Amino acid sequence: MRHFLTLNDFSKDEIIEILNLSKKIKNEAENKIFKPYLEKQTLAMIFEKNSTRTRVSFEVGMYQLGGHALFLSKNDMQLNRGELLKDTALVISSMCDIIMARVYRHKDLKILAKYSKVPVINGLSDLFHPAQLMADLLTLMELGFNLEDLKVAYIGDANNMSNSWLMAASKLGFELKIATPKNYEIDSEILKIALDNAKQSGAKISVSNNPKKAIELANVATTDTWMSMGNKEQKEEKIKHFKGFCVDNELMKLADREAKFLHCLPVYRDYEVSKEVFEKHSKEIFLEAENRLHAQKGLLVWLNEKRKNNVR
Amino acid sequence: MRHFLTLNDFSKDEIIEILNLSKKIKNEAENKIFKPYLEKQTLAMIFEKNSTRTRVSFEVGMYQLGGHALFLSKNDMQLNRGELLKDTALVISSMCDIIMARVYRHKDLKILAKYSKVPVINGLSDLFHPAQLMADLLTLMELGFNLEDLKVAYIGDANNMSNSWLMAASKLGFELKIATPKNYEIDSEILKIALDNAKQSGAKISVSNNPKKAIELANVATTDTWMSMGNKEQKEEKIKHFKGFCVDNELMKLADREAKFLHCLPVYRDYEVSKEVFEKHSKEIFLEAENRLHAQKGLLVWLNEKRKNNVR
Amino acid sequence: MRHFLTLNDFSKDEIIEILNLSKKIKNEAENKIFKPYLEKQTLAMIFEKNSTRTRVSFEVGMYQLGGHALFLSKNDMQLNRGELLKDTALVISSMCDIIMARVYRHKDLKILAKYSKVPVINGLSDLFHPAQLMADLLTLMELGFNLEDLKVAYIGDANNMSNSWLMAASKLGFELKIATPKNYEIDSEILKIALDNAKQSGAKISVSNNPKKAIELANVATTDTWMSMGNKEQKEEKIKHFKGFCVDNELMKLADREAKFLHCLPVYRDYEVSKEVFEKHSKEIFLEAENRLHAQKGLLVWLNEKRKNNVR
Repeated sequence: MRHFLTLNDFSKDEIIEILNLSKKIKNEAENKIFKPYLEKQTLAMIFEKNSTRTRVSFEVGMYQLGGHALFLSKNDMQLNRGELLKDTALVISSMCDIIMARVYRHKDLKILAKYSKVPVINGLSDLFHPAQLMADLLTLMELGFNLEDLKVAYIGDANNMSNSWLMAASKLGFELKIATPKNYEIDSEILKIALDNAKQSGAKISVSNNPKKAIELANVATTDTWMSMGNKEQKEEKIKHFKGFCVDNELMKLADREAKFLHCLPVYRDYEVSKEVFEKHSKEIFLEAENRLHAQKGLLVWLNEKRKNNVR
Repeated sequence: MRHFLTLNDFSKDEIIEILNLSKKIKNEAENKIFKPYLEKQTLAMIFEKNSTRTRVSFEVGMYQLGGHALFLSKNDMQLNRGELLKDTALVISSMCDIIMARVYRHKDLKILAKYSKVPVINGLSDLFHPAQLMADLLTLMELGFNLEDLKVAYIGDANNMSNSWLMAASKLGFELKIATPKNYEIDSEILKIALDNAKQSGAKISVSNNPKKAIELANVATTDTWMSMGNKEQKEEKIKHFKGFCVDNELMKLADREAKFLHCLPVYRDYEVSKEVFEKHSKEIFLEAENRLHAQKGLLVWLNEKRKNNVR
Repeated sequence: MRHFLTLNDFSKDEIIEILNLSKKIKNEAENKIFKPYLEKQTLAMIFEKNSTRTRVSFEVGMYQLGGHALFLSKNDMQLNRGELLKDTALVISSMCDIIMARVYRHKDLKILAKYSKVPVINGLSDLFHPAQLMADLLTLMELGFNLEDLKVAYIGDANNMSNSWLMAASKLGFELKIATPKNYEIDSEILKIALDNAKQSGAKISVSNNPKKAIELANVATTDTWMSMGNKEQKEEKIKHFKGFCVDNELMKLADREAKFLHCLPVYRDYEVSKEVFEKHSKEIFLEAENRLHAQKGLLVWLNEKRKNNVR
């Protein structure tokens, strides 16, 4: 059975197939056509950590596809407390048709997927955020990009978003330049996977500590918050370390004249991105947010199709 | 686009139109006819403060109308924490078709409405509780009242309920006498709006510190809890200040012989209303509670109609 | 109106009628047939204490039956805090069609049922867990047992599960041998009810402090966790007191050679049951978990039928 834990488990053709399906279903919805692709199917949404965007997009998505999503928040269930994750996977997958989980530890997703009798979707883990990447790629398609021609600059912290961009670029074969501050570099194992993939796809992948060089001639710039956690002291430390990594007008000037800017939200204005850059690009950023809904609807339908064909 | 933040934004004709629509849909439901007025539409219910009645009535209402409601509780999302309300409004309104919010600060509702691409409904704020008022008015219609002939006495604390009665009376043109204890008077700005409205509608509005005078010949008496918040010391203070403002048999005797009594619940028996008065009028009070469901269904359908006609 | 608070309120014929209905609806679901038995009906799920299994099974069940379930968690509403349970029952039952409640005190269920205008289902109380028992009985039927021929050994703590087995056995007329440690005996009032029932049904009921004797020749062994609550010190005490009450291979050898083992989960491996016994019988245990869904669907449909026939 196919799960959706990381883009690394998907071929270029499969990623594009899902994106095209998402686009098709989005067009239908814009014409108020809601086909019951997932009629009478249920999605268990497990949240170890809450998230408005992930929750709303999956719940609305399932409903528009003719199904139903159950919101199981950290307050409402005990993941890994009192009950083995294995038992939880077996029980929930005996009652529900798909599982989406937002977890602290990616390895918990793997356990869920191992024991689940239904597809498991990564709704955000410490390592990857592939559902967000699908929304980002759908947005760039809609903005007129040929995915192979992307030249993406990721400026900021090494985290699940930078890792997900690495998987996307290395699988789809586009250019990705990552700049992180010193001591905030990409995990070496993740980088190795991307570089191995790149040999096959022809993707140009580079990492450095130089934001100016990373953004040079990029047609897409992106970043992610590095301020959302930690105490006050840690924040002041981080502000020091991330000096020069705020995507502001000065940096954006080095990119392609028509360059787009993406942000997966929530944003901390004037930290990872300047208020000016954010507001100037807010149209594409909020399209990106809306596309969580549409990209995931395609993904849900695709996984269900695979399950039907492979398993029964 | 039309929002529903306060009755002050609505004309008399519009309020009556919504109430008639509510009554029509209630009749259908009582005959087990559930037309898909809001098919495939989603309502985001944002709760800064939880509320059983508001939540159940909106969630059941959306479901009976053929739609789906998402319950976003204070534990599940971060309103005004970490993310600008503006960003939240843009994201949620890009995925959902209507937003209902219960907030601490009415001004947050205004920000939501300003940036939302879909109608925003006030599910309770510090200033107004118009969804409750619609249920109250629907109840009084069902109890045989002509809304213009209402003589309402509001006895108790100046709060979102007294303010909402002021908007309802001053817009619809009925009599409203409010009695609050000293130092618990109606906000002067709110009162000014009501008195200005009254010039047009002919409503008789008065405020005093005299519950006996307020209730004299009233055909409807109402109040609201003033005990639900605060520590023990504050409560003892309040009990002192609200002496004489408990709606008991003695006060009710001064009202019209057939007078009805409404309470939006939860009730603190023998504080704002005596146990005897509450139990005697429990039939209309629980009809009022049930009418949250029916009044809001009419409201949801009305707002959606307006949106369809005006915006696209 | 019929409620579902304990199996003691049901006749043998009624229990079997519900189980057969559950089996029928389960067969339909396995053939992807989802008839709208509860179309446009709503279930209010009130949780004083959260529970993944109870919540997922009721929510998925209502959805598959064409209805909708509202999840009212302890964080989202105030049962018995601020509002009389009587008021809550009246309000919720004026908006919803069925109520399911998981409560600390069984007597609160009785108050809910007394004032509710719609059927009330026990989703777990301190005294009884009848929804779990229905799943257990459905499972045993599916495993080929004739319910009258059951010889059940319950080894462990006296709690809502042992009490529910007592009601099931004494109503249906099968053999039940309970073994609890000293000072953890069955409540005498509960036992009296069971023994009285047994006179009519012919059930063989016995209680002792001897697990070996209880399990002798049993064709079903079962237990429940006794480790899920309490502090560390209390746990160490309990481990001492429950010595010899862990259902392990040694105990299972005394049972019928083909004996089944049930557990309502969550399990604490090597406390109430050994890891070996649990894993060996995991197929029936997870079938039992899945059957929460199917047994409750039958129950929901049955209660609704009774309500329609009796009340209107």
